[in-house]
Amino acid sequence: MSSALRAKELLIRAVECDQIGRILEAQTLYQDGIAQLMGFVNGEPDENKRKGFLTRIKEYMDRADAIKARVNGKLMLGKVVSHICIEDNDIGYDYDDIFGQFMDDKTIEILLEEPYMTQNYQYQNLVRFLELTAVKCKNMKYFRLVTKEDTKNLDQQKTNIGQIKADLERRNITCCVKYEESLHDRRIYLSNGYIIKIGRGLHFYKASNPVYSIGLVNYKFRKCHKTDVDIWSNSNS
Amino acid sequence: MSSALRAKELLIRAVECDQIGRILEAQTLYQDGIAQLMGFVNGEPDENKRKGFLTRIKEYMDRADAIKARVNGKLMLGKVVSHICIEDNDIGYDYDDIFGQFMDDKTIEILLEEPYMTQNYQYQNLVRFLELTAVKCKNMKYFRLVTKEDTKNLDQQKTNIGQIKADLERRNITCCVKYEESLHDRRIYLSNGYIIKIGRGLHFYKASNPVYSIGLVNYKFRKCHKTDVDIWSNSNS
Repeated sequence: MSSALRAKELLIRAVECDQIGRILEAQTLYQDGIAQLMGFVNGEPDENKRKGFLTRIKEYMDRADAIKARVNGKLMLGKVVSHICIEDNDIGYDYDDIFGQFMDDKTIEILLEEPYMTQNYQYQNLVRFLELTAVKCKNMKYFRLVTKEDTKNLDQQKTNIGQIKADLERRNITCCVKYEESLHDRRIYLSNGYIIKIGRGLHFYKASNPVYSIGLVNYKFRKCHKTDVDIWSNSNS
Repeated sequence: MSSALRAKELLIRAVECDQIGRILEAQTLYQDGIAQLMGFVNGEPDENKRKGFLTRIKEYMDRADAIKARVNGKLMLGKVVSHICIEDNDIGYDYDDIFGQFMDDKTIEILLEEPYMTQNYQYQNLVRFLELTAVKCKNMKYFRLVTKEDTKNLDQQKTNIGQIKADLERRNITCCVKYEESLHDRRIYLSNGYIIKIGRGLHFYKASNPVYSIGLVNYKFRKCHKTDVDIWSNSNS
């Protein structure tokens, strides 16, 4: 497929997603479509044609900016619907208990901002989180992970996240991974209007000690690090 | 404590357990008590006293044999209450779904006959099983594991099973481990009268492939090996 056709297809899908409320996916598609179009324009020798394309690009960029504003609007905090203080060494908290009740069939897109994804247990936590979405969010279509690059072990990170991405795509869920060096805050945005903010993100469990003991698998029995959980509801969505 | 006092204490507890229906624990206590008494008798120089002890030992042995017959009687199969054929690569089967419904507050003792306990995933399966009992069997007092020795890595096996045993005992559950070289059949006896027979025992799951994919933690998403599950109810109990 030529890059022009590819750009056209991406931008048509972007508009479609935008119209049906799949704004995270629309945002990704606009960005990818515009990037394709830019590459194509740079190779266009006819100046008039190039100007035409640039006008189109400007239009799409405006749309993409509007989408970005919408996404940010959704991420603007609404009202707190649940607040949990987890104390050091508390037990009884698994993902399902803490936020499973806020995931439902209307959750078609999820954005997970989780800076640290470098250790085995962190990849396991990510899979554990996605398993919960597989149970609760039957209509999920798009998942975006924003994390920091693992500068010490980049290949391993790409392999592990690549496995997870491929697995989601086998389940017809588009998965987009974005690396942001300045990321600090942990946040989970659900497209049904809930935002989950946990001070320590997904990684608030202590290691199983000793390894083979109750709590190895069932995190309801795992000791936790101290952290706060706030669930916000965005009334606009 | 002298071995005579220790034997006396064990045998008193054996009789108590026997009387309140904790027959697996009674069986272990009788065996341990008799062994203590035997050691003590061998060191007794007075022949008359020795004969007296031997008479007592004979009585306890008869009681222990009666208990053994009762245990075997309970393990004699009653009627099948559930039968599941798991086909190769089937998904959707976790321990809770298959036999969690048969575990309840009346399950005060559990006997697990599971020949293979040598690989990490096998110890994990054992912990996963025990986590289910921690959720379902709130009054569990005694757990017996019968397995084969890991001749290739005996130290590691002792360490891992030792961790599990210590963890159960912290939860006030007596844990007894018995090694039997000839063990082949897998069987789980619950003191509420159910017996769970799974052709492959606890180890009927395929490995997660790739490692980081849905099913790593939640075994409802794990592919299974082909195996049969039969749940029997012992009407005498």
